[in-house]
Amino acid sequence: MTDNANPNNTVASIRIDPDLVDRWLRDLASHGAYGETGVWRTVYSPEWIAAANRVMGWAQQAGLAVRQDAVGNIWGRLEGSEGGKAIVTGSHLDSQRPGGWFDGGLGVVGGLAAIRALHEQFGAPRRPVEFLVFCEEEGSRFPTAGFWGSRAITGDIPSDGADTTISYDGEIMSDVMRSIGLAPDAIDSARRDDIEAFVELHIEQGPILEQARLAVAAVDGITGMRHYAVELTGVANHAGAFPMDLRRDPMAGAAEIISGVINTAHRMGRPAVTTVGRISADPNGAAIVPERVSFVVDARHPDPEARQLLYRRHEALMREVAERRGLEISWTLTQDPAPVRCDPEIVAMIEDVAKARGLETLTMASGAGHDTQRMAKVARVAMIFIRSRDGRSHTPDEFSSLDDCVAGIGVLAGTLHRLAW
Amino acid sequence: MTDNANPNNTVASIRIDPDLVDRWLRDLASHGAYGETGVWRTVYSPEWIAAANRVMGWAQQAGLAVRQDAVGNIWGRLEGSEGGKAIVTGSHLDSQRPGGWFDGGLGVVGGLAAIRALHEQFGAPRRPVEFLVFCEEEGSRFPTAGFWGSRAITGDIPSDGADTTISYDGEIMSDVMRSIGLAPDAIDSARRDDIEAFVELHIEQGPILEQARLAVAAVDGITGMRHYAVELTGVANHAGAFPMDLRRDPMAGAAEIISGVINTAHRMGRPAVTTVGRISADPNGAAIVPERVSFVVDARHPDPEARQLLYRRHEALMREVAERRGLEISWTLTQDPAPVRCDPEIVAMIEDVAKARGLETLTMASGAGHDTQRMAKVARVAMIFIRSRDGRSHTPDEFSSLDDCVAGIGVLAGTLHRLAW
Repeated sequence: MTDNANPNNTVASIRIDPDLVDRWLRDLASHGAYGETGVWRTVYSPEWIAAANRVMGWAQQAGLAVRQDAVGNIWGRLEGSEGGKAIVTGSHLDSQRPGGWFDGGLGVVGGLAAIRALHEQFGAPRRPVEFLVFCEEEGSRFPTAGFWGSRAITGDIPSDGADTTISYDGEIMSDVMRSIGLAPDAIDSARRDDIEAFVELHIEQGPILEQARLAVAAVDGITGMRHYAVELTGVANHAGAFPMDLRRDPMAGAAEIISGVINTAHRMGRPAVTTVGRISADPNGAAIVPERVSFVVDARHPDPEARQLLYRRHEALMREVAERRGLEISWTLTQDPAPVRCDPEIVAMIEDVAKARGLETLTMASGAGHDTQRMAKVARVAMIFIRSRDGRSHTPDEFSSLDDCVAGIGVLAGTLHRLAW
Repeated sequence: MTDNANPNNTVASIRIDPDLVDRWLRDLASHGAYGETGVWRTVYSPEWIAAANRVMGWAQQAGLAVRQDAVGNIWGRLEGSEGGKAIVTGSHLDSQRPGGWFDGGLGVVGGLAAIRALHEQFGAPRRPVEFLVFCEEEGSRFPTAGFWGSRAITGDIPSDGADTTISYDGEIMSDVMRSIGLAPDAIDSARRDDIEAFVELHIEQGPILEQARLAVAAVDGITGMRHYAVELTGVANHAGAFPMDLRRDPMAGAAEIISGVINTAHRMGRPAVTTVGRISADPNGAAIVPERVSFVVDARHPDPEARQLLYRRHEALMREVAERRGLEISWTLTQDPAPVRCDPEIVAMIEDVAKARGLETLTMASGAGHDTQRMAKVARVAMIFIRSRDGRSHTPDEFSSLDDCVAGIGVLAGTLHRLAW
């Protein structure tokens, strides 16, 4: 059907129903509602199960063949008249603690709305098309299990993974999975090697589109990032009785390091970013020089070489400060994904479809991690971003307008049409 | 009895039994034992009650008339043949979480051992003598209730104080007091206006005596200090998606302030000290620019003017950093005691007694707060310090040798002899 008309006219003609999108977003947000505008939907929780069931119902109504795999990823399939590897879209259902409606939710609702619209308006696709809902992208309940669903699909969960993964509350992943009917012993069965392309619609989670007054961006890469869990150890002393010149104070060292790494990323310029969001002092007494200060340095850059430079500068600074101040320092890398380059052909397709639908776009790297970067191991990938109000995410204040959501879904639908219809 | 012999020979003759001191220190440390060398003895806890009962038993055996006041301070009295206001010594029974054996414990054991030795060796005193065990000097269970026992004695607890004081675990002070038979409605009855002098024996909690290779110091003043509980508020953002140049990151501001206040005190030189021992980030996520960072600045100087200069510099820095970084800042003063000058006559007496007992001493200000500074409101005060190994305190590593403990108790006993026998 693609080629028997002007393809630009075809993708321009795809109609996305704003009322359906709005209804689905609100319905999804009701499962795990947190205040007026938030959600707290941790993986495998009753709220998550209710949301998953709701989405599976919508997918069935849209004519998809729906199943859940061993870890709980939801798949909804339209067979393609020409067969071949599948064209896939979707996002994740779990949230931050608390998060907003759109992080993950938009790509779930939008992915299904796009496929449903294409199916209604153009019938069966040439290529198999699948709708995919990932579980536990965020590490919502199991802090070490980020990208759990996509790692199952790409074969990146070790055989004892579900037995050694522990929740914030001390639950074992495999017990929790079994208790809701999933199959921790069959995680390998979730692997897929028959996916051609994966395209994820997501909110930007930053202010770049808003500053550019644009609704939609094509994403040409996903940042490489590293989490350094740093422990800086000195000597605990009485805050009043111990002279400054004799202290080995890990708080003084931590403050110097935190200032330094933040300044390093700032000076390196966009898109380098470094954040310290988590910190604790031990024993954490107001009148005690701490014995230990622990913090996490989150450092990101989408360029492979600039990223290594950023990491080297951070490590040199941490070592130098610790050495000079007589502190012990150690760190472990709790996350270290490499940057991912999106498929240039699909990125160009997204830009082209947006233009055909009358949208000016920009092309940018994602500073956030996404299941898409995992899926890059088994498929060509790309992402579509839509504008976030005030650039905010991972908070109930996260917001994107319905107009922007529908605009992004339209671009996704046009891209899927080009790839599969 | 004082004047009918060479008074130096008399104070030199006072015998302190090292075995008794060792036995009492170990016994006290067994109530709330934490590991091999620590204690965790929060006020009104079962461990604290057991320790209090033990001490009251020892005081009764030493011939004192023992009672507990409305808040749980222990008093043990020897009447004086000439009457008049009382000469008082003692310290606190509650500990840090965890703390060591000696902080408070030494002054409890040493105060009673000194009075017992004087009573045995010299009979009844001229002046009334009292042994005093304070409760909740540290804020061990109720973080805002530091100096609770001494504040009850000096009339510095408001009438609703016990109803508005909340423990780390959310308990109301008055409920806890009633549950162990104390009288939160009668706190006013704990006031005393008939104390002539209060002398407290304490470990130094710093390295100055150790560096000088001396066992004992006379304390001529107690530092003024201030706790600024600071809240720095910015905007929470995604650690990957939000550019550095657009952030309003309270962690960057906190790191700059913490470095700055520590450097300010260091440059001002001894005895200025500034410490940040307590910090928390909200929401404390590794991949989220925090919305809020809270920390406590503990700043101390014994000189009234230098202290104000230190505070002004800290406040100017905090305001400037917040303003420049677009952060909101607020602080409350959770502690703000003025410096206290010890009674020069008693300080000279301590120096003189130590010399008579063959001890070289130094005279120094205390950088730590003590019940003594509260007692200064109603009595002439002074303190005796003994050497701390490595200057450490507020940790199970805190240690002072038995020889040093006994040396300090001997000086305390000689001083009490001069004042009361």
